Amino acid sequence: MTARQGGTGFIEMETADGYTACLAEEVPVALTYNGTTQAVMMASPLDLEDFLVGFSITEGLIADLSEIETLEIIAHEDGYEARGWLVDQTASNFTARRRAILGPVGCGLCGIDSLEQAVRRLPVKAGEATTMIAASTPEQALEAMRAYQALHARTRATHAAGFWREGEGIVLLREDVGRHNALDKLVGALLRGGIDIADGAIVMTSRLSVDLVQKAAMVGAPVIIAPSAPTALAVRQADEAGITLVARQTGRIGTFTHPRRIAG
Amino acid sequence: MTARQGGTGFIEMETADGYTACLAEEVPVALTYNGTTQAVMMASPLDLEDFLVGFSITEGLIADLSEIETLEIIAHEDGYEARGWLVDQTASNFTARRRAILGPVGCGLCGIDSLEQAVRRLPVKAGEATTMIAASTPEQALEAMRAYQALHARTRATHAAGFWREGEGIVLLREDVGRHNALDKLVGALLRGGIDIADGAIVMTSRLSVDLVQKAAMVGAPVIIAPSAPTALAVRQADEAGITLVARQTGRIGTFTHPRRIAG
Repeated sequence: MTARQGGTGFIEMETADGYTACLAEEVPVALTYNGTTQAVMMASPLDLEDFLVGFSITEGLIADLSEIETLEIIAHEDGYEARGWLVDQTASNFTARRRAILGPVGCGLCGIDSLEQAVRRLPVKAGEATTMIAASTPEQALEAMRAYQALHARTRATHAAGFWREGEGIVLLREDVGRHNALDKLVGALLRGGIDIADGAIVMTSRLSVDLVQKAAMVGAPVIIAPSAPTALAVRQADEAGITLVARQTGRIGTFTHPRRIAG
Repeated sequence: MTARQGGTGFIEMETADGYTACLAEEVPVALTYNGTTQAVMMASPLDLEDFLVGFSITEGLIADLSEIETLEIIAHEDGYEARGWLVDQTASNFTARRRAILGPVGCGLCGIDSLEQAVRRLPVKAGEATTMIAASTPEQALEAMRAYQALHARTRATHAAGFWREGEGIVLLREDVGRHNALDKLVGALLRGGIDIADGAIVMTSRLSVDLVQKAAMVGAPVIIAPSAPTALAVRQADEAGITLVARQTGRIGTFTHPRRIAG
């Protein structure tokens, strides 16, 4: 029953009006650590090993890839299970971290305590990254994404997160029905491939809400490029985390924070 | 400190390259019932009373509007608290329902049990609704949305959920940085306004993933119209719930399920 990467990510289905549509699959994926479920996400059943690694890091469950001893993807009737087994030291710290993350939701706290917990303190890992991009890069990078979005080309229902390096273009890209999952998968793939995230830019196909900035900050991504407007909180947190945020709004590509990484 | 509806939903902010951008606000909103936090969502600080009511119904926390005795919106430094106080009978059933909903996440279950819990059994409330729409309605309804999306016109960063009635057009619309929140706010506004959801169509501005179909099914919405492709699971669950799902994919508007409500 073990599936290496999940399915193809799409299926063909006849619509009620007799047309054959190619639709994105969306399945529950349980992320488990040492036998206990941390989260169940609705996701594209692709690149689930990358997903588990990326989620573990961007949500602060582990600090380093080496803390995952083994990982395996199990196909069940109702979805997939992405199982991580943690090294002993991590496992013993895990319950506390897990409690901190789950804090705000359904924890019996009153509203005001929950709100305090909801606003994450972000690491400023990106602050020292000296990566530079050309002024023309954001437009080029956004343009380049589509050629790599194989699942989107079929289904028109998936987002993507890509990694751009100057002189090379998009070197890695991951797709998912959820934009957060796409970013987690990209982060996981970068880590597993030994690619330094400080050495390029994350390119999204989606709007930029604060949770994407938070995930990027957790891994020290120095640059995020997005094709549509960020929220005010996404801009504030990118500023605090030392991230250069470039995004298109009303047709114009703007540098919202830390312009020092844009050449010229 | 009590704010009637939250803020305006947007703020002006100078970008690093000296341009004044109008950005969508995104703030934590704690949804609390009888003093305990159920969820903290990142949301647009608008129409928070509608949000609390809609979320309560679409997530199955209450079965009827009358179960909420009072509700109030409190502005805090870190965000907003939407407080619901439930009638005694509901409050006593609440802990069990709450546990069922939170089940899959961080509950100590193993992966396979979590997956089983993640696939919601949907009510088939929409099954009997006899609402009909013209074949030309989906295109018209999607086209009509933009004129009502005041926050999106300023920020380009928000989604909307609208309610369409034949002969009247879009009669109600709510906006939010999150598409789920926009739908919850619309549902809350419909209920609070005494508008029968079986009497029209829900029109989204977003892709259609399964969670939107699940929310619509919980309130018996007979028709959903979306401007881009649904996922395979969204189609399957719309079919099971008796919902007519109409969506655009690769330029073509298709009826994916229950075409009996499309005239002609």
